[in-house]
Amino acid sequence: MYAIGVKRDTSGPQLLEIPRPEPAPGEALVRTLRVGVDGTDHEVLDGTHGGFPAEEEHLVLGHEAVGVVEEPNDTEFNRGDVVVPTVRRPPAGGNEYFERGEADMAPPEATLERGIDGAHGFMSEYFTSPAEYLIDVPDRLAEYGFLTEPVSISEKALELARQSRAGFSWVPETALVLGNGSLGLLTVAMLVEEMETYCLGRRDRSDPTVDVLDMLGATYVDGRETPVSEIPNRYEAPDLVYEATGYAEHALTGVQALAPNGVAALLGLPGPDERSVDLGAYHKDLVMHNKAVVGSVNSGPRHFRAAAETLDGLDATFLDALVTTLADYREFESAFATDASTIKAAVQFHEF
Amino acid sequence: MYAIGVKRDTSGPQLLEIPRPEPAPGEALVRTLRVGVDGTDHEVLDGTHGGFPAEEEHLVLGHEAVGVVEEPNDTEFNRGDVVVPTVRRPPAGGNEYFERGEADMAPPEATLERGIDGAHGFMSEYFTSPAEYLIDVPDRLAEYGFLTEPVSISEKALELARQSRAGFSWVPETALVLGNGSLGLLTVAMLVEEMETYCLGRRDRSDPTVDVLDMLGATYVDGRETPVSEIPNRYEAPDLVYEATGYAEHALTGVQALAPNGVAALLGLPGPDERSVDLGAYHKDLVMHNKAVVGSVNSGPRHFRAAAETLDGLDATFLDALVTTLADYREFESAFATDASTIKAAVQFHEF
Repeated sequence: MYAIGVKRDTSGPQLLEIPRPEPAPGEALVRTLRVGVDGTDHEVLDGTHGGFPAEEEHLVLGHEAVGVVEEPNDTEFNRGDVVVPTVRRPPAGGNEYFERGEADMAPPEATLERGIDGAHGFMSEYFTSPAEYLIDVPDRLAEYGFLTEPVSISEKALELARQSRAGFSWVPETALVLGNGSLGLLTVAMLVEEMETYCLGRRDRSDPTVDVLDMLGATYVDGRETPVSEIPNRYEAPDLVYEATGYAEHALTGVQALAPNGVAALLGLPGPDERSVDLGAYHKDLVMHNKAVVGSVNSGPRHFRAAAETLDGLDATFLDALVTTLADYREFESAFATDASTIKAAVQFHEF
Repeated sequence: MYAIGVKRDTSGPQLLEIPRPEPAPGEALVRTLRVGVDGTDHEVLDGTHGGFPAEEEHLVLGHEAVGVVEEPNDTEFNRGDVVVPTVRRPPAGGNEYFERGEADMAPPEATLERGIDGAHGFMSEYFTSPAEYLIDVPDRLAEYGFLTEPVSISEKALELARQSRAGFSWVPETALVLGNGSLGLLTVAMLVEEMETYCLGRRDRSDPTVDVLDMLGATYVDGRETPVSEIPNRYEAPDLVYEATGYAEHALTGVQALAPNGVAALLGLPGPDERSVDLGAYHKDLVMHNKAVVGSVNSGPRHFRAAAETLDGLDATFLDALVTTLADYREFESAFATDASTIKAAVQFHEF
């Protein structure tokens, strides 16, 4: 079968011909429908994140997938079930995080990540997975179900954020999403019905991401004109900040911009970034205003299930505008484009 | 009656003669037993924190009190009830935080603080308080009940910290308390039965605070030899960091020292402190290890009630060692000493 992967000795994604996998006991064989591409895939391609499976010369890409059960094998699934795989898999011997069903809380050294770190991803005509890592989703998610994974990332981050504020009355009225990439836009769509939502980007109108923000009823903030620190004065102080830029300074400015008792969820993965900052002001503000910061990575089965429900409730017009690129796997290159007209791209392997 | 306060035109605490207050409807008159002194009192005396009541020439000090109801007036209390007052009071007109019983979540501009900011404290022979701000405690807390307020500060901070980790399995095994002042030592006493507890200070043995740590079964870490960043290597990475030093860098180093999925509770109030730091490393570590930071200030009635219960369970030998100074109000000066032999001081107004 064909797969899209990267080889140790060459750069860039390429079409590979590899054997179709056989499901082991407890595993189902899944016929792949679509696989999304995100920033992590580009980091893997750049060699700045993740790594190859041990003793393998290639890594099959892709961690945002939706597929159809082709061979249930001995699992509880039925042929034709639409499923979304989770990303993390236990390293040899397993560990407590996987035993508890909380792989998303494992530190990096205690997990593999399919398509990212040490395990093949889902960008292939078929893939196998243990049944416990497959989430059953409604058939109508066959089209956009590959967005379950990114939505689940936000489900987890927002759960951690809300949980941190659960000890007192906290009714967030305003959210600030930092980053107008596809994850930022999906998160805006998740929040905008519940609260006034601002989204920070660095794009000139007209731009497809800004058009999506307009469509959603969110307010676009051009970070080149209005830095995060100015948002409380120019607009209002957010109760919730969701950071998906990987811009290191947002860990500080995002917290400082918060309203009293607010929480900032950090998801970006910046590189080293040495800066001179007033740590005293940062620390004192956190204390005097009972603020919180939560870091969040990956997501667990519970978040995938919540995400499937969320995704099912999102407006089709929004999803159609979000997914700008759908590439057949034989002509996958356009799915890895990073031009300003691309918001979210996916590779299609089969029709439902 | 006599009170200990500070005047606008002079520095240092002094004995003042002021009228004995009359309880208004809904208020009880309390005969003061003991009032503790802490770092905030010293900040008030230094003029770096808080402020005088509007149109008053003096501020009565003291926010850590225990007393006996002298005149219940029209409240539900009985004469002789041992009570501890909470600290925050509504500014004119009140606000949502007080209406919800969550004054501790009010931003600084939405509250007065007795003995600290804009309202007289409890360092006087008698004080009045609305019944809703008086916590009924067991008679046996007449002696050390003035510690209810500092313990309540930690009850709140630890509640926020635990709440932030409530969405997944989190069983903290190791705690690191930054600061070996009286609040740090009380917090060590609260944690040490439940987890391996380290406490960072900057004192040479023999020192009374280090002796108390030995007595409690905690491990003293000399921060001059082992900076916070070295603690995970030299000892172990803590699941919980509790910061009560006001040293700005701990907002970063305390988080970096955390074990995966750990939480740092910040309580100190540093002044401006400009530093060059690798914000990228800080931000990425928070995300990759699902860490959290909570700022916490003040405490609510629920935390006072929990604190009274906690205090009631603490070892009397520990409390005797902690309270190094008990000064009669007519000779109050020793309660404001800051020498190395003082851990916790209180002023006594009446015997129970």
